Amino acid sequence: MRKVAIPGSFDPLTNGHTDIIQRASTLFDEVVVVVAQNTTKACWFSLEERCTFVKESIQSFANVSVDVCQGLLITYCQSNNIKALLRGIRTFSDYEYESSMSRLNQELYPELETLFMMSDKLVAHINSNMVKEFARFEGELSGWVPKHVEIAIINRIKQETS
Amino acid sequence: MRKVAIPGSFDPLTNGHTDIIQRASTLFDEVVVVVAQNTTKACWFSLEERCTFVKESIQSFANVSVDVCQGLLITYCQSNNIKALLRGIRTFSDYEYESSMSRLNQELYPELETLFMMSDKLVAHINSNMVKEFARFEGELSGWVPKHVEIAIINRIKQETS
Amino acid sequence: MRKVAIPGSFDPLTNGHTDIIQRASTLFDEVVVVVAQNTTKACWFSLEERCTFVKESIQSFANVSVDVCQGLLITYCQSNNIKALLRGIRTFSDYEYESSMSRLNQELYPELETLFMMSDKLVAHINSNMVKEFARFEGELSGWVPKHVEIAIINRIKQETS
Amino acid sequence: MRKVAIPGSFDPLTNGHTDIIQRASTLFDEVVVVVAQNTTKACWFSLEERCTFVKESIQSFANVSVDVCQGLLITYCQSNNIKALLRGIRTFSDYEYESSMSRLNQELYPELETLFMMSDKLVAHINSNMVKEFARFEGELSGWVPKHVEIAIINRIKQETS
Amino acid sequence: MRKVAIPGSFDPLTNGHTDIIQRASTLFDEVVVVVAQNTTKACWFSLEERCTFVKESIQSFANVSVDVCQGLLITYCQSNNIKALLRGIRTFSDYEYESSMSRLNQELYPELETLFMMSDKLVAHINSNMVKEFARFEGELSGWVPKHVEIAIINRIKQETS
Amino acid sequence: MRKVAIPGSFDPLTNGHTDIIQRASTLFDEVVVVVAQNTTKACWFSLEERCTFVKESIQSFANVSVDVCQGLLITYCQSNNIKALLRGIRTFSDYEYESSMSRLNQELYPELETLFMMSDKLVAHINSNMVKEFARFEGELSGWVPKHVEIAIINRIKQETS
Repeated sequence: MRKVAIPGSFDPLTNGHTDIIQRASTLFDEVVVVVAQNTTKACWFSLEERCTFVKESIQSFANVSVDVCQGLLITYCQSNNIKALLRGIRTFSDYEYESSMSRLNQELYPELETLFMMSDKLVAHINSNMVKEFARFEGELSGWVPKHVEIAIINRIKQETS
Repeated sequence: MRKVAIPGSFDPLTNGHTDIIQRASTLFDEVVVVVAQNTTKACWFSLEERCTFVKESIQSFANVSVDVCQGLLITYCQSNNIKALLRGIRTFSDYEYESSMSRLNQELYPELETLFMMSDKLVAHINSNMVKEFARFEGELSGWVPKHVEIAIINRIKQETS
Repeated sequence: MRKVAIPGSFDPLTNGHTDIIQRASTLFDEVVVVVAQNTTKACWFSLEERCTFVKESIQSFANVSVDVCQGLLITYCQSNNIKALLRGIRTFSDYEYESSMSRLNQELYPELETLFMMSDKLVAHINSNMVKEFARFEGELSGWVPKHVEIAIINRIKQETS
Repeated sequence: MRKVAIPGSFDPLTNGHTDIIQRASTLFDEVVVVVAQNTTKACWFSLEERCTFVKESIQSFANVSVDVCQGLLITYCQSNNIKALLRGIRTFSDYEYESSMSRLNQELYPELETLFMMSDKLVAHINSNMVKEFARFEGELSGWVPKHVEIAIINRIKQETS
Repeated sequence: MRKVAIPGSFDPLTNGHTDIIQRASTLFDEVVVVVAQNTTKACWFSLEERCTFVKESIQSFANVSVDVCQGLLITYCQSNNIKALLRGIRTFSDYEYESSMSRLNQELYPELETLFMMSDKLVAHINSNMVKEFARFEGELSGWVPKHVEIAIINRIKQETS
Repeated sequence: MRKVAIPGSFDPLTNGHTDIIQRASTLFDEVVVVVAQNTTKACWFSLEERCTFVKESIQSFANVSVDVCQGLLITYCQSNNIKALLRGIRTFSDYEYESSMSRLNQELYPELETLFMMSDKLVAHINSNMVKEFARFEGELSGWVPKHVEIAIINRIKQETS
């Protein structure tokens, strides 16, 4: 397979995301992490900040790049000749949501397949919302997000409370 | 059975809804589609618009009508002598929510039974929220909602962006 | 709706089954409880015994009858002009199995719809296998099966151990 | 075990909560109900009101007390030498959320264990959100919340609509 | 990615299996369908017959082959330098089983990743057990298995009953 | 709480079981591991062997003992004045089964409560059936069962194949 895209909001990037990205880099020739603008829920971090989170985490992977998707994901895939998405599944809720989304996407763009990987057992309980909830109470985040993301979160909290 | 009610927000009506309505019309003597005002979440379309969506979709079914419920569904059922609700189930989340609701409703109005049908496999992945999310990005909706609903959505998007 | 069939093995009939039968009798004009021969798993009780369990439990319902299905359920339904099945759902496993079965059945016999009811909260944890497991250890069964079934189970256990 | 904490928002306290509290009081030496400030979702009732709901419901249990947690739950547990949380599980969604939370909490505070109880079958379908939804429509709440909570809800609705 | 293996019992091969095989053939350079001996459950069809089912279904795919695994799947993968498995997911039960298996396999052979695809909505309700159950009653199978498998099943049933 | 029982078949004991036992020993005054005869499914190891598996694993825990239950678990609990069971939950299937069993048990013996713990993320994917399946193919078991159990399994396999 030539190219696989890993789409997401990455608000913020967690160790759950980097697990999938790293494993994908060993399986596929080319991996592009696609950061979605996401208009349906307000993000904590700007699109630029979220891209930077990804960029700093993929430096050691020669075949992984980052890109931005400001519209519909399938339009992005069509424009960029992407035929396969890769998504990590942590929980049953993920499974159920992804299952519907992959069928909806395929109806609109039949060549587009979605592949899934089960999150590593060490990170399957981490999600961006819980990270933000813990962060608001100044909880320790070092096991759940990369170091550079942790610093960004701490700075963010400082700004909010100052 | 004399009469069954199919309650919902229909914001907007999808092909998943019309699948259930059409199958119900062959099974029951009388079917009433009950459009709920729904105060707990903001609707995209007005109560009137949502009723129109239903009305235009049931024209060919002699035993299906549409009505409005502005208060509690069980109060509506008691007032209209309705003893059975019919709900479509697409996903496990639906199952879990409906299971609790049918027990709550029956505690308040013991004569009221809730019947369920599994959504047709062709439409089980469609839901109103995903339709709205795709619509915001001008995605193609023709497989998921009736034609007249698609037009209403497109007009709606045009108004928002003009 | 003229007629609804409630199919099952009823090995043995539990209070979960009688809950569904009783509620169905108030909703539908005619209810037929269809006892399946079931060749894929060995039954504790003979087809005749299982029919008797049902017969003794439906005596007070004028619109409920019992019948036997020795082949495929859809063949039975086609032969007997049955257009609707009714099944109780207690658990997610039930939901998942029934969801597939209703789609399989409908592919072979498109006029056949399957309706579902959530088991009453008081009996949703009862299933025939657990009843048999408890019975083997001479556990108290009076809350889970009708009196006449309890007697049959006790006799059955006595025969096995004598 | 010396002490177990039952954390929650209790917005409002339901009969589901009091079921768990009462059963815990017979199993553990000391039970503390911990009312969380909860900054991630807006509460209907103030922290003080929610504490009062609990206080009035635990009067007959000598070994149950109430306390407040305004920050992170694990910080509260560390400060108060609490090594065990107790949570009721009603649904699969509860199970999935609690499963992740117990693992997150244990990573930050390894001595902290979370124990679970299945909600009683009579109250497993009750949750605070549905109670509020019914209350807004002046639905009957007496089977779902303690009397004193019902009065508070009715007063609350009166204030909103006057 | 050079090579992906699709393991299974294929007892018998269904249209659900061929859906995954066909989609995989467009995504991966090389696909090998691995028919497992499977000692834990008795198979209806011999290993040879099950291989033939696959062989006849992959004739039009230049990059798909069939092979046999008589021992542990990970041993097979290690011996054949396979770094990726592909599995179809139809139901939540599949998801839960596959999720555990992919973690077990990866502990024993860390380079081995398992990728998943959601079964096409048209075939997600088909499974080999239900096919056999229907076949025993001489049900119509043409929508669920390839033609050559249907013939094999019919012959099989004839032998059993003659 | 004075005493908690951890019931099971332990056929064989896995690292998933020892995780729960060890964590329970820090939470409760007294823990008794109850090995069930289990007549409904054939065990690989004798009751005596399964007890030995537990005994060798609990030597370092002063407050943990092992006992045998040859009849119904609730009868055992009543005879031994046990008011609380503790069960580990690894998967949704576990949750669903345990949820029904705890309600059945409580109906027969109302003082009996069942407490649950989520399995540690490192062992949540291990179960006795998969261990046996891997063992049959001479797979590596050292990460999934205690050393002494691994030896017993290897000896067992040798006997079968010699």
